[in-house]
Amino acid sequence: MSYIATGIEKMFQSVELERQIRRLHRAVGNAVVDDKHVVFAAGSIQLINALVHALSPDANAASPPARVVATAPYYPIYRTQTKMFDGREYRWGGTTALWVNASRNSTDGFIEFVTSPNNPDAQLYEPVLGGSAPVIVDHAYYWPHFTHIPAPADEDVMMFTMSKPSGHAGSRFGWALIRDENVAKRANDYVQNSIMGASRDTQLRMLGIVKIMLANLHGKEDIFAFGHDVMRTRWRRLNAVVSRSRRISLQRMAPEYCTYFKRIREPSPGYAWVKCEMEEDDDCYEALLKAKIITRSGARFEASSRYTRLSLLKTDDDFEVLMERVTDLVNAENYDEPASSSTTLVM
Amino acid sequence: MSYIATGIEKMFQSVELERQIRRLHRAVGNAVVDDKHVVFAAGSIQLINALVHALSPDANAASPPARVVATAPYYPIYRTQTKMFDGREYRWGGTTALWVNASRNSTDGFIEFVTSPNNPDAQLYEPVLGGSAPVIVDHAYYWPHFTHIPAPADEDVMMFTMSKPSGHAGSRFGWALIRDENVAKRANDYVQNSIMGASRDTQLRMLGIVKIMLANLHGKEDIFAFGHDVMRTRWRRLNAVVSRSRRISLQRMAPEYCTYFKRIREPSPGYAWVKCEMEEDDDCYEALLKAKIITRSGARFEASSRYTRLSLLKTDDDFEVLMERVTDLVNAENYDEPASSSTTLVM
Repeated sequence: MSYIATGIEKMFQSVELERQIRRLHRAVGNAVVDDKHVVFAAGSIQLINALVHALSPDANAASPPARVVATAPYYPIYRTQTKMFDGREYRWGGTTALWVNASRNSTDGFIEFVTSPNNPDAQLYEPVLGGSAPVIVDHAYYWPHFTHIPAPADEDVMMFTMSKPSGHAGSRFGWALIRDENVAKRANDYVQNSIMGASRDTQLRMLGIVKIMLANLHGKEDIFAFGHDVMRTRWRRLNAVVSRSRRISLQRMAPEYCTYFKRIREPSPGYAWVKCEMEEDDDCYEALLKAKIITRSGARFEASSRYTRLSLLKTDDDFEVLMERVTDLVNAENYDEPASSSTTLVM
Repeated sequence: MSYIATGIEKMFQSVELERQIRRLHRAVGNAVVDDKHVVFAAGSIQLINALVHALSPDANAASPPARVVATAPYYPIYRTQTKMFDGREYRWGGTTALWVNASRNSTDGFIEFVTSPNNPDAQLYEPVLGGSAPVIVDHAYYWPHFTHIPAPADEDVMMFTMSKPSGHAGSRFGWALIRDENVAKRANDYVQNSIMGASRDTQLRMLGIVKIMLANLHGKEDIFAFGHDVMRTRWRRLNAVVSRSRRISLQRMAPEYCTYFKRIREPSPGYAWVKCEMEEDDDCYEALLKAKIITRSGARFEASSRYTRLSLLKTDDDFEVLMERVTDLVNAENYDEPASSSTTLVM
């Protein structure tokens, strides 16, 4: 397989895969693609720095480095990757909370990451800084098995990945939708210069997967209907157990109207954002680890360690083990209250 | 295909593919692998900055940024990629010629790229700076179809790619062999944090390819014997035509003993490094372009524009067209000398 994927204009990027991805967004209704450029990358992870690079002031400009920020709790790789590359044109600026209340006249010099739905808490979010600060919206989970789709996303710079809609995380394939031609060109140059484009083997495989997803939309084998059913059932079961607890609680999520399913749908997040309510459980990750439940501490998302992220993205077998352990943890709370324990233990 | 390739220790890297790559190096005899760590990446292109990052002073250290250098003519992506990432811990330092003659007491603070065999001129090279400067040796072409193998390479930091031995350039797969554990860890962290490892689809495909290469070594379907035969024939034919020219010349290459073939082998470079000998042809790229021969100007390799790189890595059909055009160019030289033109035109 040679360097060239399609032709001289899009040397490293399959034109046919781009066309099918645009069709998928139109059919699902989760992004406006007609006025956007599409830039492929080795996973949306690679797009983090590609887009920071593309939105930063030019190396030859006299501007100070851009401050890259996000609102906590945020996906920690925005921080680790920005710090690792440690470019002269940008630096990690911390959480938006540091800046939004500071006395300042403009949002110049900031680049804001927004994840919507958010990782870890699965809520739909908007940018916080506003003004002229460019925003990179990570829509990894903006598919109808993880969230309702109120309207097609139409931000200037958006990130998507194949890891979440179909689960092909190991294939390392993501794409950006970018309104401005110059920003798209800089992001594309970044991918060319750093890896000469996403693997063509992978692009070929993604083409097959997107076509199959498309062919089955709203049919019996609709991947989103299947995924929503699995995730909604998991969320419902987890809530039923945790609702009996005074020790841990989950984020609140309401049923919402979804333009893809054309009906009100139950929540189906990929992650539970668990809060430990007891004063002594100030490290919620550790509290759950004692019950053999492995989570990711809120501290890693620059949030309070009273919170921890519990992934619901696992095999059915692993989810059953998780449910057993959560149930044991919740049941154990009532040992001191014999009057109610007999009731809860039979549930 | 999930994030995890093999297990918890090598999450993003197939242990079996690593084992087969080590076997291939041992069988070909082109690299000492037993005391090296193997780090996969999305093509050896990605390893350029991964290794610069891994060899640069720590961001928290007070050291000045490392100067990244190479000897002209050099592969231009070392420069473009180092400049594009524009990290605080390193910067592009230009050609070694700028530094080797300067009065200085140490080689501290340099990182030297060496390509061996070199792209563009196909010669085996050694580092120039010496001393304590870490060296990244790019062995993309150090396989027995492109060069004789005098001995297994054993530098501290080496780069290889699948683009050249088998021609699977579009798959974007490369690997580094690294002696020092800490340098290997930093390079590996770079690949994890920037793309979460090379595509697992690609790793699986590479596994099949390496196994087939291994199974056929020294046999009837030996890829290196085949490749050497093709490339040697092309070089011989090109030389036969160019030797009649006073306008252009090629680099000189001698037959050399090869430990893989266990005999003296004829040269078989991937590139011809063409020199325009006439005073008026100071832009050799333009001179050849007029004859409809597309090359890559010496200026891009930070060499004189009197030189230009002619790729011999192409399909048979394209090579035949190239030979026609080179022959026309050489024959045209003699139009002013009717006495000899009749002889050369019938050749």
